[in-house]
Amino acid sequence: MIYFLSDYSQGAHPVVMEALQRTNLEHTGGYGLDEHCRHASDMIRDLIGDPDADVHMMVGGTPCNVTVIASSLKPYESVVALRSGHAYYHETGAVEATGHRIVTVDGINGKMTPDMIDKALCEYEDEHTPLPRMVYISQPTECASVYSKAELTALSKKCREHDMLFYIDGARLGTALTCRDNDLSINELALLCDAFYIGGTKNGALFGEALVIRNNEMKDHFRFMMKRQCGLLAKGRLIGVQFEALLEGGMDSIYFQMSRHANHLAEKLKTGLSEMNVSFYSDSSTNQIFPLFPEKVVLELEKEFAFYRWAPEKDGYIPIRLVTGWGTQESEVEAFLDNARELLRG
Amino acid sequence: MIYFLSDYSQGAHPVVMEALQRTNLEHTGGYGLDEHCRHASDMIRDLIGDPDADVHMMVGGTPCNVTVIASSLKPYESVVALRSGHAYYHETGAVEATGHRIVTVDGINGKMTPDMIDKALCEYEDEHTPLPRMVYISQPTECASVYSKAELTALSKKCREHDMLFYIDGARLGTALTCRDNDLSINELALLCDAFYIGGTKNGALFGEALVIRNNEMKDHFRFMMKRQCGLLAKGRLIGVQFEALLEGGMDSIYFQMSRHANHLAEKLKTGLSEMNVSFYSDSSTNQIFPLFPEKVVLELEKEFAFYRWAPEKDGYIPIRLVTGWGTQESEVEAFLDNARELLRG
Amino acid sequence: MIYFLSDYSQGAHPVVMEALQRTNLEHTGGYGLDEHCRHASDMIRDLIGDPDADVHMMVGGTPCNVTVIASSLKPYESVVALRSGHAYYHETGAVEATGHRIVTVDGINGKMTPDMIDKALCEYEDEHTPLPRMVYISQPTECASVYSKAELTALSKKCREHDMLFYIDGARLGTALTCRDNDLSINELALLCDAFYIGGTKNGALFGEALVIRNNEMKDHFRFMMKRQCGLLAKGRLIGVQFEALLEGGMDSIYFQMSRHANHLAEKLKTGLSEMNVSFYSDSSTNQIFPLFPEKVVLELEKEFAFYRWAPEKDGYIPIRLVTGWGTQESEVEAFLDNARELLRG
Amino acid sequence: MIYFLSDYSQGAHPVVMEALQRTNLEHTGGYGLDEHCRHASDMIRDLIGDPDADVHMMVGGTPCNVTVIASSLKPYESVVALRSGHAYYHETGAVEATGHRIVTVDGINGKMTPDMIDKALCEYEDEHTPLPRMVYISQPTECASVYSKAELTALSKKCREHDMLFYIDGARLGTALTCRDNDLSINELALLCDAFYIGGTKNGALFGEALVIRNNEMKDHFRFMMKRQCGLLAKGRLIGVQFEALLEGGMDSIYFQMSRHANHLAEKLKTGLSEMNVSFYSDSSTNQIFPLFPEKVVLELEKEFAFYRWAPEKDGYIPIRLVTGWGTQESEVEAFLDNARELLRG
Repeated sequence: MIYFLSDYSQGAHPVVMEALQRTNLEHTGGYGLDEHCRHASDMIRDLIGDPDADVHMMVGGTPCNVTVIASSLKPYESVVALRSGHAYYHETGAVEATGHRIVTVDGINGKMTPDMIDKALCEYEDEHTPLPRMVYISQPTECASVYSKAELTALSKKCREHDMLFYIDGARLGTALTCRDNDLSINELALLCDAFYIGGTKNGALFGEALVIRNNEMKDHFRFMMKRQCGLLAKGRLIGVQFEALLEGGMDSIYFQMSRHANHLAEKLKTGLSEMNVSFYSDSSTNQIFPLFPEKVVLELEKEFAFYRWAPEKDGYIPIRLVTGWGTQESEVEAFLDNARELLRG
Repeated sequence: MIYFLSDYSQGAHPVVMEALQRTNLEHTGGYGLDEHCRHASDMIRDLIGDPDADVHMMVGGTPCNVTVIASSLKPYESVVALRSGHAYYHETGAVEATGHRIVTVDGINGKMTPDMIDKALCEYEDEHTPLPRMVYISQPTECASVYSKAELTALSKKCREHDMLFYIDGARLGTALTCRDNDLSINELALLCDAFYIGGTKNGALFGEALVIRNNEMKDHFRFMMKRQCGLLAKGRLIGVQFEALLEGGMDSIYFQMSRHANHLAEKLKTGLSEMNVSFYSDSSTNQIFPLFPEKVVLELEKEFAFYRWAPEKDGYIPIRLVTGWGTQESEVEAFLDNARELLRG
Repeated sequence: MIYFLSDYSQGAHPVVMEALQRTNLEHTGGYGLDEHCRHASDMIRDLIGDPDADVHMMVGGTPCNVTVIASSLKPYESVVALRSGHAYYHETGAVEATGHRIVTVDGINGKMTPDMIDKALCEYEDEHTPLPRMVYISQPTECASVYSKAELTALSKKCREHDMLFYIDGARLGTALTCRDNDLSINELALLCDAFYIGGTKNGALFGEALVIRNNEMKDHFRFMMKRQCGLLAKGRLIGVQFEALLEGGMDSIYFQMSRHANHLAEKLKTGLSEMNVSFYSDSSTNQIFPLFPEKVVLELEKEFAFYRWAPEKDGYIPIRLVTGWGTQESEVEAFLDNARELLRG
Repeated sequence: MIYFLSDYSQGAHPVVMEALQRTNLEHTGGYGLDEHCRHASDMIRDLIGDPDADVHMMVGGTPCNVTVIASSLKPYESVVALRSGHAYYHETGAVEATGHRIVTVDGINGKMTPDMIDKALCEYEDEHTPLPRMVYISQPTECASVYSKAELTALSKKCREHDMLFYIDGARLGTALTCRDNDLSINELALLCDAFYIGGTKNGALFGEALVIRNNEMKDHFRFMMKRQCGLLAKGRLIGVQFEALLEGGMDSIYFQMSRHANHLAEKLKTGLSEMNVSFYSDSSTNQIFPLFPEKVVLELEKEFAFYRWAPEKDGYIPIRLVTGWGTQESEVEAFLDNARELLRG
């Protein structure tokens, strides 16, 4: 079986395993108060060019989203997000569990636009309606598209106009910053938002995400909230050790190399399938593609490849999701293309 | 100034004031455990023909909605409601404050349909998404339309098919059950849902709503939840006394007479304006109407009448909301019609 | 049956009923945005001598406590209260329902002392423990004792030293300010705390409490929180109308006259029973007394008088609670004393 | 520097690192739905002799406690715990964040007794008080004592009498089950409670705990709650892989060998210090000891050893905490004893 199931179906890049092994017997303080976390945080402040940013080593993406929202908003404030956004769609109401509404808007190709924020603001009246105070997006989006610099700038500007916080879920940030369609540096992205995270889980770490908080008003007592929201790891250093290993070298680090590799193989899949006249469910730029196949082809592909069916059949075609990761082999991509070519020809 | 502002802008029907005065010096137990609450509850059980229903005297509509939802749903369960629904639109996130998501759907003429429930269910996948477990609607709706027996039956059936609870916000229930377009008895409505409330605040009570819980699974420890969610009044008997006075005589009681009166005057307004070729923002059946006027007419009307502008100007017209209540006078309606006639003629 | 059950077992003082009747047909804005609420608020600002205080008309005591706490504290902050405090003991976890811990301390004669606050602060370590940020007390206390000016000043000073908010539950504030043991003016009390409420429900109102917020940091967006926490009444004016009627005349108003009356009759009961060598469960100063009787006496008293047994029998005696209120008659007190005298003699 | 700081200051036992390395390139499903988690769960069901238990691989101890409590209790129910209990003392109000009160009782030598549960139940009255529905304890306790079989049986019986759930926090369970004072098997412990967890973080795992739910009523939709409460790891298999490696061999597995090792070295420290006439702050049985030293000795010890001061100086002595772990060396213990001997002699 060849896997295009997800980018977190394998363990970690060897460099991560090696770093964990090498530091295994060190004694350190707990809960992220150790040299590795401090060093990794410094590396990230360097990378984004903001010496004043707070960096927190978080155990996962949901704790990142939940803790940022619960920590930054007053009880009567809400967060605007896409209906397809991860915090809305795939976190079992973890945000509402902290008492905050997610005001949903419908995206276009997985993206939010400034007028969608306007629409959400229009629904706000007065003390009888929660006050929209944060915009939540993902870069890349849930359907693997990426915001351009102009698009992100427009969202950022709209947020600032309305005194809204702008938070970017970067579960797969590496693939956005290294894809062909990208025109943004990580420094520029950091400047445009109030907080974002650099995802480890979906890009070659064993687990863990590095949360960056730039807005001073969001920094206060954040570690209290991490503990309260179950996002503080006793052996917090494990996350620090991983990011030290992954980010060494900045944009040339293993972290971004892995993203480039995943993007490259996704693009190879996409190009290959396009040449077979396969259509796509959505227009993606990073390491997930969504080709459409007739059910009988899907059934055959499922015998040798693992992937998700992404939506119900429509007009005779089923969209499937193929995800590439740091561990995906060029030969696996070729095997898929060969197989598909044969099945479509048949 | 003549008021069409809301149906809760005045005090209470004289029969309510008289009952409160008459019982004022009685000593009773607190928190709704008194003879008046028991008697009013019995009257309601008789009215709806369900001797096993639990009836609770609640201090307001928001506490009703919040307590029912927080008490009936498990933490990971959500409630499906219209984006225009009161619990979503006008309660400042009080539902989310208890940790539950409201999954919104867009209504048609203020109404939900079974396929909208299907759509909400489609968004549910597995343990990564909150489980939709309740449907919340209002009868009449927020735009003064009413569900027919067939429509309500279809929603009820859909809920039961999917093991969802069906809850009806009856803040203005009296006007629904007595309007010209109604084809439902209160017994039928009660049978179709799991819980609903009979609104007092917007229909001639000083304050208070009578919540009816028919589904046994929703009855357990409800009074604990009333206290926890700030919906239990120390002098709970005040609400019992009011409903005793209001509901004496069942469908011929003062309660329903007031609703008929409000509906009648709203209809008179609507008919009168229609004869002047005024158009309406939405199609209403009960005590709220939404005529469209040019801004200069609205400005003139505002000099003598109090009402809300309901939405921004569009195509040269502004929708306003006119609400009639138990205390609205026939002469006040005539004054409005005369005024409008003159202004439109001018 | 003669009632010493509670001070909220009857309706409202006639002056309240008269005011509600008189204003019944007025049209006003909803949700406390009306002339009566504004006027009552001005009267309260005058009474306490703080023109900058925010005053909110709340539907009950639990909503007051919950809304103040949920609005003022950050999610990781806790409130220090007596184990016997109302917000801990009699509100079904309504505070914890908003995500905040109540850190309990054990009182002495129902009172908190500065060293109890120190003890609570000692339990605080760092980001692994909620941060104590508010002190909650009641004046008078749950066992009817009152804090002296010196005691309250010491608590206030301790709070300010530790940047803690100081909030006073004044459900029965009138009886504290008018009892024989009182040495505090309402102005002085207001100056010592950040927020407090003037209770209506337990002192002759139909229902409702007037919340006073003096600390600017606690004022922001409070009405949003009132709605979210189910404490905002649609016909909010009802509470304004009542406080207008009750507080006319300041310290000589009906409000304080009723408190003096209740205190006077409680004192008469206490003195009378003391003369019969009856002992008391706790030392009270206001309108609740806790005499100890042998069970056979209690059983006889229960035939003609309604009251609560306050704690289990101990050493052959049962403490009962006798509460006097605005409606208690001197003759009722005499009847109790005569009865007790006879039973104890027998 | 020699570390007696905590049992989670180092990485993982080599057998864990080896297993993670060996399985690193496998592709598996996410979120704990993989063969390793299934296998580890089977091993645990075998170990405790309950084929029907549900086992969940949790990311940490706080998520265990929070998810079990939030999932099992209705909103108005509370959990009884020691004031010194981890869920109360060291989790920043994470339980209250889910809306539940922790009713605290004061322990004796870190332990709860049945009469403390009675005392908590006495505080419960009716719908005005949260209903105590669960008892939370730790085995071993926060001060390293262990409940005997008789003590645990008495607590279990008391819980069942009052229809309360009994949950045991087993962050350091291995050390309890292997210490000299233990008279309980893991099967017996499992039978006495409704749920407990086998801690990994503090006993040689990289991170992760294995939660065991025996009570059917607590099993329902638990994975939804894990996600909602931030306790579900994307690469959940990492925890499964670790427990597979740790528990191979049951009571003779590496897991329990490590606990025996830690206990042995703590006992050696304790015996050695006792021979020097050192007193102890509390009576411990497992891998934490609390010797009392004069400040000047503590200051000297701090130059070569890392440990926590546990409480303020009293009567000239400071209690310090020494923790041994899987990685503590016999020579490190000897070094401490030698050093202490010399300092005390001096």
